[in-house]
Amino acid sequence: MAEPGRDAAVADEQAARERELIDRVVASFDGAADERLKTVLQSLTRHLHAFLREVRLTEDEWTTGIGFLTAAGHLTDDKRQEFILLSDVLGASMQTIAINNEAYANATEATVFGPFFVDDAPRIDNGGDISGGAAGQPCWVAGTVTDTSGNPVPGARIEVWEADEDGFYDVQYGDDRTAGRAHLFSEADGAYRFWAITPTPYPIPHDGPVGALLAASGRSPLRAAHLHFMVTAPGLRTLVTHIFVRGDELLDADSVFGVKDSLVMDFEEQPAGTPTPDGRPVGDTWSRTRFDIVLAPAT
Amino acid sequence: MAEPGRDAAVADEQAARERELIDRVVASFDGAADERLKTVLQSLTRHLHAFLREVRLTEDEWTTGIGFLTAAGHLTDDKRQEFILLSDVLGASMQTIAINNEAYANATEATVFGPFFVDDAPRIDNGGDISGGAAGQPCWVAGTVTDTSGNPVPGARIEVWEADEDGFYDVQYGDDRTAGRAHLFSEADGAYRFWAITPTPYPIPHDGPVGALLAASGRSPLRAAHLHFMVTAPGLRTLVTHIFVRGDELLDADSVFGVKDSLVMDFEEQPAGTPTPDGRPVGDTWSRTRFDIVLAPAT
Repeated sequence: MAEPGRDAAVADEQAARERELIDRVVASFDGAADERLKTVLQSLTRHLHAFLREVRLTEDEWTTGIGFLTAAGHLTDDKRQEFILLSDVLGASMQTIAINNEAYANATEATVFGPFFVDDAPRIDNGGDISGGAAGQPCWVAGTVTDTSGNPVPGARIEVWEADEDGFYDVQYGDDRTAGRAHLFSEADGAYRFWAITPTPYPIPHDGPVGALLAASGRSPLRAAHLHFMVTAPGLRTLVTHIFVRGDELLDADSVFGVKDSLVMDFEEQPAGTPTPDGRPVGDTWSRTRFDIVLAPAT
Repeated sequence: MAEPGRDAAVADEQAARERELIDRVVASFDGAADERLKTVLQSLTRHLHAFLREVRLTEDEWTTGIGFLTAAGHLTDDKRQEFILLSDVLGASMQTIAINNEAYANATEATVFGPFFVDDAPRIDNGGDISGGAAGQPCWVAGTVTDTSGNPVPGARIEVWEADEDGFYDVQYGDDRTAGRAHLFSEADGAYRFWAITPTPYPIPHDGPVGALLAASGRSPLRAAHLHFMVTAPGLRTLVTHIFVRGDELLDADSVFGVKDSLVMDFEEQPAGTPTPDGRPVGDTWSRTRFDIVLAPAT
């Protein structure tokens, strides 16, 4: 790896010692039975050492790093995954998503999956309500599913899930309720529509070492408001994404870097009394948005 | 960071998305109150993302990585530190030592500290025995402590510690014995000498995820045979190092990359009956070695 200016700042003998060590570590993985494992570990070694050399990591900082990983490990259990949070706030989760969902024509961009998907969400018909009683302002969501040539994709399975207006998913309620999640299928012309609730921001768990890192960095633990989608259809690439709310002040400060400009949608506030698209009485104000989903071919 | 060939292999739009994400993550640390924290986290971000992009990490591999860190965290407790082992086998511990003990004239090279030092090892006089009953072949160790101009350093505190012939340190015995460790002081002319036991190889703990990584890489968990030193004297840089045994077949395969050519010493085997330097009766065969220690100035 290039280390601009580094070798100039360190005496030749010192630089030679540091480079020779890297060569030895890289060579130690030559015997890996699996070629891919060898590739990954040798690249990891080079980048890890380039980092250590670039910042001239002190022994106290190394000790702090070991302590951070240890605390993260001890906090992690079946319900809390501090290493995923760490990956998230360093943008590593989002980069992995980006790498594995390469840009393809006008296909909808992917974003992070998050920890709150569950497999067995109820099925609703088009026009049904995913809220299941979750508190929040009603929101009408409609759009189409097409391929990158504009052909409708009928029968695409659309999973949707979201937090309530207090920022909690049903799995965080501590009871067995299912709320704020469902699946439905696109119609013959690719269209879909459902009632949800207008998304609101919420924090990632921040009472652990990752939260301390965010605080020390002057960063908020909040996620920009969003509604999750996972869309699957035969012969097409599965899309895991969110839509975000235009005007949300957190769009530029999402704690896990999930926001893409192309995923920011207009959520149009409707004054109380505005008739709903399907005549459903919603009592008070409601919002509406449109999300046209374009699926890339399966690879 | 340079990513040779990467952008050429990925479509422009895709490469732009990946680079834009890195810029956003780097910028998120701009508000860190501490300049050094900002420097470290921004460098970490750049190198981490360069690694992800270079290997095109798959989502399954990311999941494997999260699982590895989780298992390491759950194995780590007061007695077992899997994250330090991970740092060790990736050469990160040794690189940190190298960075913080820069080459200086003919000063003796440093190596890893290891987990087996204890603070209150007994004092011995010159010519005394550090073994405390630890099993192994007696070994006579002698040398001098000087500065880099060749001036003797009297009164330098020399801590020495080692495993027994079965590869165990006293702290691993499960009782309160102190064995295979002591401290002594150099004499007016810088000279020191003591009885120890001839070092033998032993494995780092390898029943956890780090051991599995070594096995998958075709690497041995063994450390080359060594005797630990820590030498302190006023106005001089503290030296933490080992000496190794010339001819040990593990010199090129030390699991933590602690070996430096300059630290490999001749341990001369003495036939049974050879008189000892101080007339001490040792019964059977013994060995001897010489280690002249050169301390850099304190920085």
